[in-house]
Amino acid sequence: MFAKVISIFVLFALSGFSALLSWNKGTGAEAHDLNGLERHFQYEIKQLSVPVDHFSFSNNSTFNLRYLYNDTFAEKSNPQPPIFFYTGNEGDIEWFAQNSGMVWEQAARFKAVVVFAEHRYYGKSMPFGSNTFNCTKPEHLAYFTVEQTLEDFAMLITFLRGDRQMPVVAFGGSYGGMLAAWFRMKYPHMVIGALAASAPIWQFTDLTPCDIFNKITTSVFQTAYNANCTTNIGRSWKLFEKLAGSDAGKKQIADAFHLCDPIKSSDDLTKFLDYLEEVYYNLAMANYPYNSSFLAPMPAYPVRQVCFYLKDLHENDADLLNAISSALAVYTNYTASVKCLDYKDVNKGSSADSFGWNIQVCNQMVMPFCANSSDTMFRTKPWNFKETVDNCIKNYGLTPRPYDIIMRYGGKNLNAASNIIFSNGLLDPWSGGGVLQAPNDLIQVIIIPEGAHHLDLRESNPADPPSVLDARAKEAIIIARWIEQFYLNIH
Amino acid sequence: MFAKVISIFVLFALSGFSALLSWNKGTGAEAHDLNGLERHFQYEIKQLSVPVDHFSFSNNSTFNLRYLYNDTFAEKSNPQPPIFFYTGNEGDIEWFAQNSGMVWEQAARFKAVVVFAEHRYYGKSMPFGSNTFNCTKPEHLAYFTVEQTLEDFAMLITFLRGDRQMPVVAFGGSYGGMLAAWFRMKYPHMVIGALAASAPIWQFTDLTPCDIFNKITTSVFQTAYNANCTTNIGRSWKLFEKLAGSDAGKKQIADAFHLCDPIKSSDDLTKFLDYLEEVYYNLAMANYPYNSSFLAPMPAYPVRQVCFYLKDLHENDADLLNAISSALAVYTNYTASVKCLDYKDVNKGSSADSFGWNIQVCNQMVMPFCANSSDTMFRTKPWNFKETVDNCIKNYGLTPRPYDIIMRYGGKNLNAASNIIFSNGLLDPWSGGGVLQAPNDLIQVIIIPEGAHHLDLRESNPADPPSVLDARAKEAIIIARWIEQFYLNIH
Repeated sequence: MFAKVISIFVLFALSGFSALLSWNKGTGAEAHDLNGLERHFQYEIKQLSVPVDHFSFSNNSTFNLRYLYNDTFAEKSNPQPPIFFYTGNEGDIEWFAQNSGMVWEQAARFKAVVVFAEHRYYGKSMPFGSNTFNCTKPEHLAYFTVEQTLEDFAMLITFLRGDRQMPVVAFGGSYGGMLAAWFRMKYPHMVIGALAASAPIWQFTDLTPCDIFNKITTSVFQTAYNANCTTNIGRSWKLFEKLAGSDAGKKQIADAFHLCDPIKSSDDLTKFLDYLEEVYYNLAMANYPYNSSFLAPMPAYPVRQVCFYLKDLHENDADLLNAISSALAVYTNYTASVKCLDYKDVNKGSSADSFGWNIQVCNQMVMPFCANSSDTMFRTKPWNFKETVDNCIKNYGLTPRPYDIIMRYGGKNLNAASNIIFSNGLLDPWSGGGVLQAPNDLIQVIIIPEGAHHLDLRESNPADPPSVLDARAKEAIIIARWIEQFYLNIH
Repeated sequence: MFAKVISIFVLFALSGFSALLSWNKGTGAEAHDLNGLERHFQYEIKQLSVPVDHFSFSNNSTFNLRYLYNDTFAEKSNPQPPIFFYTGNEGDIEWFAQNSGMVWEQAARFKAVVVFAEHRYYGKSMPFGSNTFNCTKPEHLAYFTVEQTLEDFAMLITFLRGDRQMPVVAFGGSYGGMLAAWFRMKYPHMVIGALAASAPIWQFTDLTPCDIFNKITTSVFQTAYNANCTTNIGRSWKLFEKLAGSDAGKKQIADAFHLCDPIKSSDDLTKFLDYLEEVYYNLAMANYPYNSSFLAPMPAYPVRQVCFYLKDLHENDADLLNAISSALAVYTNYTASVKCLDYKDVNKGSSADSFGWNIQVCNQMVMPFCANSSDTMFRTKPWNFKETVDNCIKNYGLTPRPYDIIMRYGGKNLNAASNIIFSNGLLDPWSGGGVLQAPNDLIQVIIIPEGAHHLDLRESNPADPPSVLDARAKEAIIIARWIEQFYLNIH
C-alpha cells in the first residue's frame, strides 16, 4: 500500500456553528467540548491501494483511492472511537467534505474519526491514471460501477479498523446517500448505520413515475413567490423557439442573455434550452436558506429570487425575454463576475463531475425522467430509453443495464434493511425518488418540509429553518443510539 | 435466452416417506395431500443465459446456467406459489437434487415450485464451454467466485418470478448452505429465508481454530464403537511410513489394500496417506443411519462399521495393517465390486467435483486446516498458507484471497442477518466451522446431536434418529412462518 500523506488546511466559514448546540434541544444529550472550531474541515489527504476489479481473478491491477482523514476529534483514551465515513459520490471528494459540514460537526460532538472516501473515477481516484477516460480504451470504463465502489469503501474501512472494533457510521448525500444506504444493506457488518440524505434510491425504472422530478421542481417555483413564475417559464420555451427562427430573434436572445456564442443552429438552441432547464433544476436543489456556492454561487432561497424577477405576467415577448434573463442571472452571475454566458457548459464552475456521471448513466444509473408541459413548467419530453441506449453505445461503448440496481438493492423491497435514516427535503426535486415512508421499524424516515437537496448534511447556519434543526437533532439521537448499542454489544 | 427443456424421470427410493408425516408432530400444521409420491425427483432440465461477468461492463459474453425445475406440486389456483430454490454447490446439480430429498418432500407439503440451480463451473454450467478449464486459458477461471454465483441465482429468480410476487426460500447443504445463507444476507429481497444445512461459514482464517475439523472427526471415530478405533488409526501412520521404507513393506501394503498401483515413491506414500485421511473424513461426513451412496456406497453408520473392524488394539504390525484394510473397505469397496484400490483418485465414484473445488480453494475458499497427532488420530500437520499460495499460483495462476469472504459476508458479525436457519449435526466434522449459537432472534440455530453432514436435507428414512425428525419439524415450522408472513405482507 502506498499512502501519500499531505496535510491540508481547508479554511471554511463556520458562521453558523452556534446552531449545533441547539441540536441538543430535547435530546437529553449533552453538548460536549468541541475541541476548538479551528479543527473543522481540516484533513490529511491519504490514499489506499485497491484492486481495479474486486470481483474477478483475471485483473490484478490496482490504483490509489483517495480519502480525507481527520482523527483529531477522537479521544486518545478511546482505542475504538467511532468513524464517520462519508461515501463519496460524483465529484472531487474535497468538494463533498466542504459541503457536508454536518458530518464534521457531528464528529466533533461524537468524538469520531472523520473519513471522506473518494468515489473511483472521480477527483484523483482514477483506476487507470491519466488514461482512465482515454476514448481509445473504452474497456477502462468497465469497473465504474456501484458494486466496485462499495468494495473500495469496504476495503478502506477494513484497513482503517485493523484489529480494532470501531463503530462506523456511513454518511452520504444524493448519490452518496444512495451509496451509504446500499453500503449498510450489503455490508451491515462494516457500518452500524447510514444517514442517506436526499438519496433517490427509487429513481429507477418502474419504481417512480418519470415525471415526478419535473413536477416537484415546478411546484417549488410555483410556491416560491407567486404562480406567475411558472407561467412565465412555461411560456418562455415557445418564445425561444420562435425567436430562434430568425436571425433578428437569435440576436435578441444573445443580447438579452449575454451569450458567449450566439445560437446558430437548432443544435445550439437545444443546448440553450437544456441549459435553462438544468439551471432551474440546480436552483431547486440548492434552494438553501442562505448564500451558498454548492452548485454555483447563489443567494439565499435563490428560487424565490428567480421568481421575484418573474412575478409579473409578461404578455410581451421582449419583457418576458428580459425577465427570464434577469431571473437566470441569479444562478449564472450572482457574483457579477461572469462576462458572458456559456450555455454549452452547464457545469462550468461547479465541482459536480457531470462527465463521470454521464458515464454512470450509461451503465447502471439509468434514471427515467420525463415531463409534460400541461402540468409542469417544462417542455413535454417523454422518457426515451432507446435513445439513451443508442447514445451510450455511441459515446462510451456501454450498454446500460436499467435493472441492475433494482435486482441488487431490492427496489421497493427494503423489508430486511435496518439502521438507515432516509432524510428528504420536500423542496428537493429528488425527494420524489426517495424513501418517504419507513418500510419497517429499523428504518427511519425524516421529512424536512423546508429543505432543499440534503440541506441537513450541510453545516449549521443561523438561517437554518426549524425543520432542518429538528431533522439534525433526530439524526443525532438515532446515531447516538446505534453507537451506544455497538459499545454495549462488544463489552 | 436459450432454454433447452428435457424431461427426466429420476427414479429414487422413497422408502422412508412415511416419516414425512411425523414432521407434523406438535407443529400444529396439517399433513397436506402430497399429490402422489411418483412426482418426487422429477424435473425438467432448463437453462438460462447469464453474463460470465456480472460486475463489469467489459465482458459481455454469456453462458447457459443449468437448473432443474418442477412446478407440479404448486397449485394451479395459486398464481404466486412458493419457490424452493436450492443454491447449487460443488458438483453436478442433479446429484444434489437426488441427495436433498427433504427439499422435494417439503415442496410437496408446501405446494412449492422446486428449483435446483447449478453452480457455475460445475456440471454442465460452463462459462467458457469445453474451454472453461483449458490450462492455456487461465483467465477463464477469473469468474469462478461466490459473488458471480450469487448473481447467477439472483438473475434466475428474477427470471422465474417475472412480475409475480412469489415467496422464495433458499436451501443448501455444506458449501451450498453457505451460499444459501450468504444469498439471504446479500439479497434479502430475493429470498424470504434460507435453510443453511451444515454450512461452515466460519471455516475461514482466524474465525475458527484450524484443528477443529480433525478433532471432531477423531471424536466421531472415538465414540462410534470403542476408543481402540482411534488408537489403531493413530498408530497406523507410523506403520505405513515404516513399511514404505522397504520393498517388502511396500508389497505388504499393496497386498493388504489391493492397490492398483503399488507405492513406489515417497510421493506415492503421501498420496496414499492423504487418501486414507480423506476416507476417514468422508466416512464421518456421510455417517448416515442407513445405507447411502452420497460420497460412496456405504452401509448405515459406516464409522461404527469401520471401528468395529478396529475394536481390538493391535500391537502387531500385520494385524494392524489387515485391520485397517478391512476397515477401509467399508468405504472403498462396500459393493464388493472394486477390483483394486486407486488411492490416486480420491473422488473416484463420487459426484463431488474436487477439481472445481480445488480451484475455489485457490481463490476465495481458503479454509485453514491443521492437526496435531497428540489430540487427534491424524498426523501432525500445521496450516501452511504459504504452501497453499505457492501451489495455487503454480497450478492455476491464482493468488488466493483469504479475507475476501470475511470482508464480504461479515465473518462472525451476523447481527444484521435475518431469516436464516443454521442446522448442524454434531457428528459432522464441518460443524466446527458452523454457526452453533444464534447471533440474534431472527436467526435460528438447530443442533442435530445424532446428525452427520446435512442429514436433515436428505429424504426421510425410517432409520432417521429422533433429533433429525425434530430438526426437520422445526425447519418446516419456521419456513411456514416465513411464507405466511410473506403472503400477509403482500395482501
